[in-house]
Amino acid sequence: VSGGPDSLVLLHVLYSLRSHYNIDLLVAHYNHRLRPEAAREAERVRAFAGELGLPCYVGEGPVAAYAREKKLSLQAAARDLRYQFLERIVRETNSQKLALAHQLDDQAETIVMHFLRGPSPRGLSGIPPVRGHIIRPLIEISRQEIEAYLAEHRLEAVFDPSNDKKIYLRNRVRLELMPVLKEYNSNLTLRLSQSAEIFREEDRYLEEETDRWWARLVSREGGRLLVSFAGYRQAPLVIQRRLLRRCFRETAARQEDLSFSQVERLRRWLEQPAAGKKLQWPWGVRIWFDGERIIFGQEEPVPGKEPGFPYHYLLAGPGVVELPQGRLHVAYVDKISWAEEELKELGPWTVVVDAGKVSFPLTVRTRRPGDRFFPLGLGGSKKLKDFFIDLKLPAEKRDQVPLVVSAGGEIIWVVGLRLDERFKVSAATEQVLRLSYEENKPEMV
Amino acid sequence: VSGGPDSLVLLHVLYSLRSHYNIDLLVAHYNHRLRPEAAREAERVRAFAGELGLPCYVGEGPVAAYAREKKLSLQAAARDLRYQFLERIVRETNSQKLALAHQLDDQAETIVMHFLRGPSPRGLSGIPPVRGHIIRPLIEISRQEIEAYLAEHRLEAVFDPSNDKKIYLRNRVRLELMPVLKEYNSNLTLRLSQSAEIFREEDRYLEEETDRWWARLVSREGGRLLVSFAGYRQAPLVIQRRLLRRCFRETAARQEDLSFSQVERLRRWLEQPAAGKKLQWPWGVRIWFDGERIIFGQEEPVPGKEPGFPYHYLLAGPGVVELPQGRLHVAYVDKISWAEEELKELGPWTVVVDAGKVSFPLTVRTRRPGDRFFPLGLGGSKKLKDFFIDLKLPAEKRDQVPLVVSAGGEIIWVVGLRLDERFKVSAATEQVLRLSYEENKPEMV
Repeated sequence: VSGGPDSLVLLHVLYSLRSHYNIDLLVAHYNHRLRPEAAREAERVRAFAGELGLPCYVGEGPVAAYAREKKLSLQAAARDLRYQFLERIVRETNSQKLALAHQLDDQAETIVMHFLRGPSPRGLSGIPPVRGHIIRPLIEISRQEIEAYLAEHRLEAVFDPSNDKKIYLRNRVRLELMPVLKEYNSNLTLRLSQSAEIFREEDRYLEEETDRWWARLVSREGGRLLVSFAGYRQAPLVIQRRLLRRCFRETAARQEDLSFSQVERLRRWLEQPAAGKKLQWPWGVRIWFDGERIIFGQEEPVPGKEPGFPYHYLLAGPGVVELPQGRLHVAYVDKISWAEEELKELGPWTVVVDAGKVSFPLTVRTRRPGDRFFPLGLGGSKKLKDFFIDLKLPAEKRDQVPLVVSAGGEIIWVVGLRLDERFKVSAATEQVLRLSYEENKPEMV
Repeated sequence: VSGGPDSLVLLHVLYSLRSHYNIDLLVAHYNHRLRPEAAREAERVRAFAGELGLPCYVGEGPVAAYAREKKLSLQAAARDLRYQFLERIVRETNSQKLALAHQLDDQAETIVMHFLRGPSPRGLSGIPPVRGHIIRPLIEISRQEIEAYLAEHRLEAVFDPSNDKKIYLRNRVRLELMPVLKEYNSNLTLRLSQSAEIFREEDRYLEEETDRWWARLVSREGGRLLVSFAGYRQAPLVIQRRLLRRCFRETAARQEDLSFSQVERLRRWLEQPAAGKKLQWPWGVRIWFDGERIIFGQEEPVPGKEPGFPYHYLLAGPGVVELPQGRLHVAYVDKISWAEEELKELGPWTVVVDAGKVSFPLTVRTRRPGDRFFPLGLGGSKKLKDFFIDLKLPAEKRDQVPLVVSAGGEIIWVVGLRLDERFKVSAATEQVLRLSYEENKPEMV
């Protein structure tokens, strides 16, 4: 329970239904300590739980420090720590269920975000209403219905001002994109939630079908997966695709999926595979054919070198680049909304730069010998290597830091660490470009 | 070949590859006679085909009259007549294939349009690259690549000014929405096309699985479908949904699908069906349970009364209402773009009204006794019944004309026939509301 509208309604509804369903409730609140009002909000949740006679567990943690340490965005760090806390309370209190207050609009926004990245049956399934012991009783309730419930029951929710900031992708989707999409279909939110149910079931069905083929075709030998080639060729195209993606995911050094074009490349190669030749894939995966079986194995690790690095990607204009460990978003933003105090709140994973000084295509790449830049505030240039040394960044990490480089070759941003002086926003800036980096997460919510 | 960029490139590419693939080409052009330049464009296509030494068939037809007669939008009527002409040429010339010039951006726009209506696995499959003898060789080629090809080969395409008009949903998606979506992912067009391939295959696979269950469970008796109840209950949820939708589609008076919530209502009813009780569904479908089988049958037709009528729908704000035979879109539009001559070009299926005079919720309904309105240009009010009689509209059609009614009960638009005088756009209009009606079509492209 955050104290916001959704969680307040969830608590109130569950409280009203507690005898009907014969359930014992307890309240858990996590204080992220990111806003000055946080302590007061924790007190309000505690007081509300007290009024209802429910036990209330309040946790808190060093979100900012955790974000720095794990190289996560503030949002991702807050979510990690919050879930850790909630799961600990579930364990320690022997609770059966963990009820979360995601609602219909969250669901629709999540699906739109998946659509924007390139829709997949899994992505369009959205947020699962039930998964393990996690339940989301409000997932079919709209924001409007929640407001009406609050008014009817005279409940006063806490207002979180960070929901109004357009710096996070989810907030931009909620505040900017959803209203535009609703001009085309005012029922979109409901329709997306209904569609999610269909996609969820069809994806589950196809995964179960894949399970059956997997049981027949795939065996393990040490860390390797062996797939019967004759059996694979008999499988329908949809099953072939899902088998290949699953084999990759299970052998990769990180929980990563092959992209559509990678799956298609692999499928084409398997139309006439050359025995003996090994394919090198991202995340250390090697794939080869021994005449009878397709074999997925992990590469021997090279000390100090993670798979997937070095890399080098081009970005022709504003948009998204997928990197081995995350993705970089580049977008023009409205200058007016970038007041001085907001700039300070961007955190390490978002920067704004003077769009007039940046030339496309951008390159997003790992470091190269000789890299130099003008660290913000230093008043001069510095070797990137020395910059890393001064930061005491471990040597094996240095090859993984993404650099955003302008078409002229100047480093614009050492991602997560420092902006370049030459590209900063000034009084003369006419247009602002926002760069933001988002770590890969197994789930988007 | 329209003479526009896409079709010109298609023709040129196929011409260049004709000996490689050993194909004979012939060119067909349909003159819609909707624009003053149309005849000149037909001549240009004919000349271009002549330069390449290819036979060229040019057809033309009364699109506007056909639209009036069949109550179609100009766009839909043009498409109907064009396809009829192309198919006739295919037959008469004994051609093997009909190549159409849909390209990657068309594909992405189609998928976005399906997404906006509520995505389904079928809808997100987009435009099929191959269906029967229709092939779309450019479906993976972007508008940008087509422009580059034209420039490289110094081909001069005809520019169709109607592509710049925002009155059609597709044009609005292309001109207004796609640029917004690409700010979130500049690669969206390609990603959507790749996703379409996945959805297409998964949908095909699930349809084939449904075929297998259908063959086991469903039998015909006269015009009825009988489904084994025990067998239905054994089927996985995804198959149950697809079976029910297919049974409905095959028994309905029109080629119509059940909506998500209708399928779910039916599924819930089938959890404990009462033998003997008959469910009434849209399009004259009756569903009942005889203790062993679920039976789908067509209602006895009531003379003069089509199923699905009368109806009555509310629209809380701008958006879309699904009607039995089509859908109504309501949206605010930029007043500046509505010059006098553009207003005349809207055709019977789109009107613009003074938003300041319209109150939400709108009602979209069929006629009721006593309905009156102020037909545009008449200078007074008139009974709707007399208006229909004067138009010589057959009695059985009068119950099917959608009426858009303001919150105060005033008729705003007799859809396809006449605007109300009170709501017309004037010099004092501050905001414009566009109402447009789109007939159900089995396919969106």
